[in-house]
Amino acid sequence: MADPRFYRAAGPFKLGELARIAEAEIADGADPERRFKDVQPLSVAGPDDLSFLDNKRYRDEFRKTRAGAVLVHSDLARDAPAGTQVLVSRDPYRSYARVAAAFYPLPVPEAGVHPAAHVDPTATLGRGSRVEAGAVIGANVDIGAGTVVGANAVIGSGVRIGEGSIVGPTATLANCLIGARVILHAGVRIGQDGFGFALGPKGHLKVPQLGRVVVEDDVEIGANSTIDRGAGPDTVIGQGTKIDNLVQIAHNVRIGRGCIIVSQVGISGSTKLGDFVMLGGQAGLTGHLTIGDGARVAAQSGVMRDVEPGATVGGSPALAQREWLRSQAALARMSRKQGGG
Amino acid sequence: MADPRFYRAAGPFKLGELARIAEAEIADGADPERRFKDVQPLSVAGPDDLSFLDNKRYRDEFRKTRAGAVLVHSDLARDAPAGTQVLVSRDPYRSYARVAAAFYPLPVPEAGVHPAAHVDPTATLGRGSRVEAGAVIGANVDIGAGTVVGANAVIGSGVRIGEGSIVGPTATLANCLIGARVILHAGVRIGQDGFGFALGPKGHLKVPQLGRVVVEDDVEIGANSTIDRGAGPDTVIGQGTKIDNLVQIAHNVRIGRGCIIVSQVGISGSTKLGDFVMLGGQAGLTGHLTIGDGARVAAQSGVMRDVEPGATVGGSPALAQREWLRSQAALARMSRKQGGG
Amino acid sequence: MADPRFYRAAGPFKLGELARIAEAEIADGADPERRFKDVQPLSVAGPDDLSFLDNKRYRDEFRKTRAGAVLVHSDLARDAPAGTQVLVSRDPYRSYARVAAAFYPLPVPEAGVHPAAHVDPTATLGRGSRVEAGAVIGANVDIGAGTVVGANAVIGSGVRIGEGSIVGPTATLANCLIGARVILHAGVRIGQDGFGFALGPKGHLKVPQLGRVVVEDDVEIGANSTIDRGAGPDTVIGQGTKIDNLVQIAHNVRIGRGCIIVSQVGISGSTKLGDFVMLGGQAGLTGHLTIGDGARVAAQSGVMRDVEPGATVGGSPALAQREWLRSQAALARMSRKQGGG
Repeated sequence: MADPRFYRAAGPFKLGELARIAEAEIADGADPERRFKDVQPLSVAGPDDLSFLDNKRYRDEFRKTRAGAVLVHSDLARDAPAGTQVLVSRDPYRSYARVAAAFYPLPVPEAGVHPAAHVDPTATLGRGSRVEAGAVIGANVDIGAGTVVGANAVIGSGVRIGEGSIVGPTATLANCLIGARVILHAGVRIGQDGFGFALGPKGHLKVPQLGRVVVEDDVEIGANSTIDRGAGPDTVIGQGTKIDNLVQIAHNVRIGRGCIIVSQVGISGSTKLGDFVMLGGQAGLTGHLTIGDGARVAAQSGVMRDVEPGATVGGSPALAQREWLRSQAALARMSRKQGGG
Repeated sequence: MADPRFYRAAGPFKLGELARIAEAEIADGADPERRFKDVQPLSVAGPDDLSFLDNKRYRDEFRKTRAGAVLVHSDLARDAPAGTQVLVSRDPYRSYARVAAAFYPLPVPEAGVHPAAHVDPTATLGRGSRVEAGAVIGANVDIGAGTVVGANAVIGSGVRIGEGSIVGPTATLANCLIGARVILHAGVRIGQDGFGFALGPKGHLKVPQLGRVVVEDDVEIGANSTIDRGAGPDTVIGQGTKIDNLVQIAHNVRIGRGCIIVSQVGISGSTKLGDFVMLGGQAGLTGHLTIGDGARVAAQSGVMRDVEPGATVGGSPALAQREWLRSQAALARMSRKQGGG
Repeated sequence: MADPRFYRAAGPFKLGELARIAEAEIADGADPERRFKDVQPLSVAGPDDLSFLDNKRYRDEFRKTRAGAVLVHSDLARDAPAGTQVLVSRDPYRSYARVAAAFYPLPVPEAGVHPAAHVDPTATLGRGSRVEAGAVIGANVDIGAGTVVGANAVIGSGVRIGEGSIVGPTATLANCLIGARVILHAGVRIGQDGFGFALGPKGHLKVPQLGRVVVEDDVEIGANSTIDRGAGPDTVIGQGTKIDNLVQIAHNVRIGRGCIIVSQVGISGSTKLGDFVMLGGQAGLTGHLTIGDGARVAAQSGVMRDVEPGATVGGSPALAQREWLRSQAALARMSRKQGGG
């Protein structure tokens, strides 16, 4: 069971209920009335636990599991050991996410302003919102219903945050409009000046940054990531996009809906991403590019040209995936030949 | 216009005044008495707005702009559409920076110590300085006139900060001397221990870090960047150098004047940069190197050897630019030949 | 001498005492009764200072040093200038670390809870612990004896921290168990949600993250590094491991004992490192890998496959070091040949 110092389990749930929550089907022979107390990984789950198999890499663990029931794709269901009941799902990981959220519902935050928070009298706090100790909220800020501002976070003047959002501890927000159900993890920096200078041999002149950051609904941004405000146009993070830790997003960048941006990616100024783009960890994109809908960029790639919708690119500088793999293979052959001869 | 929740516009200004501020010349036929209310990008500017063209990539937008006036280089001035007046500048971006700063002057911070700040009684605060809520200022700290210490920032004992500087919210400073007109963005970490260990199979022994960080005048350091203090010598950031977000600068590094260091760069211990060096995003430099004045390092490069003054290097490991481009081209030819044959 | 605004020197010490502290031997002719006031780098040390030579790169500085005494390996001792006494050490850097710690002992933190800290009444604070201004400590937290919680740090409910640890200013901890003598620098983020989503074209579903972060004894973690909690299993940082600034460690990662992880490294989910693994700066490891004991990964490498114990790998994608160096050389030859012919 998850450590009770940190998590409180609901349940137990009957297998039938779990199937409904998981949007899965109960396999033949399973007992819909059987009760389950927890979710657990395959390797440690016991008879009262529900587990899941998503990555084929863990198939052996599935064959040996002691889990009472497992969420699994129909292709792999026949490998279930004798004592284990099966819930068949087209997307076992998604099913697991639903079930785990049922066992461990997010606690409803206790509403109210901590006496050691500093809220400007002109700020507006929505019903059921929560402001923790040491948080600082500036003039004319508007916080939506049920939104949590974490301990020692700092919200600059004029910022708007929608309903049901979470601002992590010590995060700082300025010059930005944040949507509903947005999660900003600890140490996120939103809305500071972009890196804009008119360069010159007698000194670099700071260019005023007059835009904002617009973070649409259902976005999540990882710990210590930084998103600069626009220089004139806005920096925009589209609805449902998920950004990992330590990511840098420069001024005027526009990111579409449903993108996945893995840790330590850097996106330079004015680059535009379509919808459902995926950027692997530590990838870097230069400025003023257009990355099409559904494009995929391999980890550590250096993208210096536009990428077509649906294309996959890799390498630094990045090539179309096929060309990149071919150049890697050519290099390997070459080094063997010349090394050996 | 910039969002009035975040920015307050001065003006209007006459074209003649703007030309003087911009250090630009009024082209034939333009009216120095005409008044302008705002600055805007080419694509959205209207008849009362001043805009600028700096990057040829946006030439088409220039030809179609509805801006009342545009700052532009003489080479491109003839493309101005009929209704648009022209201010000719040798450096339109620099001119724009001056004009934008006139329209949107930085607000003078309200002086004073917030009642919820924690200032040690032995600290000295200059005239007109400002300490925001939750900021913590240690013993014997000396803060210059007009300097702002942002909300929840932490200034360790003995730190000096010059006049007119800005310490962003939640930034932390220790064991450092900061100059005048320095801007440290939110979450900057200055002066913590460098990564110094005497390695050994029975455990790694921490080496005391006895130096400081010296940040000279007019430096800007981006959000969540980290600058470790020296091990014995100091870590030094030279006058006018501009550092982007999420940059790592290790102990004993010495950076010259006017350098430009883009996001997510990492510089290892004891490496020295001359003046006006430019490091592209995500570049990494190993330790104990010397990078000459005016050298340029391409994004994502891995620099493992000294770089001559004025040289441009790229790749990982980094080569002289010409050699690097050649190796990329050779690889591309190879992969085509072997892939196709 | 180290700046007295930041450091207080103990001493003087006799050479005999220093030899004992350094676990070094006094060379013939040196005077064990001679007194030394400070440690200094070779280039600035004077007759009352002890210095050290560890990196052959600085051999010329050694030959010209004015230091009263130098810690040096027996191989290089004969280069000592006439006026300089020699302490012979098998590991001069380790010896220096011991001596420097004697000259500059860490100040014992003044115990007590600052009146402007916010400690939940259910939290337990060990004897001699210290909680600085603006720190926020949640329900049921347990802080060990002599541990320091820095200004504006935030410790979430249920967190345990062992004895003699240091939590830097503005660091945030949640869902984690921290050992003894652990150092967490400013802005470290521990225990936030891992980047776990069930991806899908209609939106990415957040997967509950139900594990913890376990940080064993004697670990050090650099400024602004981020360590996500496990999804179900824990994320574990093994005893004595040292992590630099701006490092990202994803959910379920297990790191062994005594590892060295340099700045800006990223380790993806569920990857396992053995003991005494070394990862160079900006290296990236994909998920679900196993990296054997004592393996070494070059800076900026992209590791996509398991690494054998003791192996050295480099490049992106990473190859065995020998193969990697060969491919670099082959490419250089090729580019010369094709470029020149």
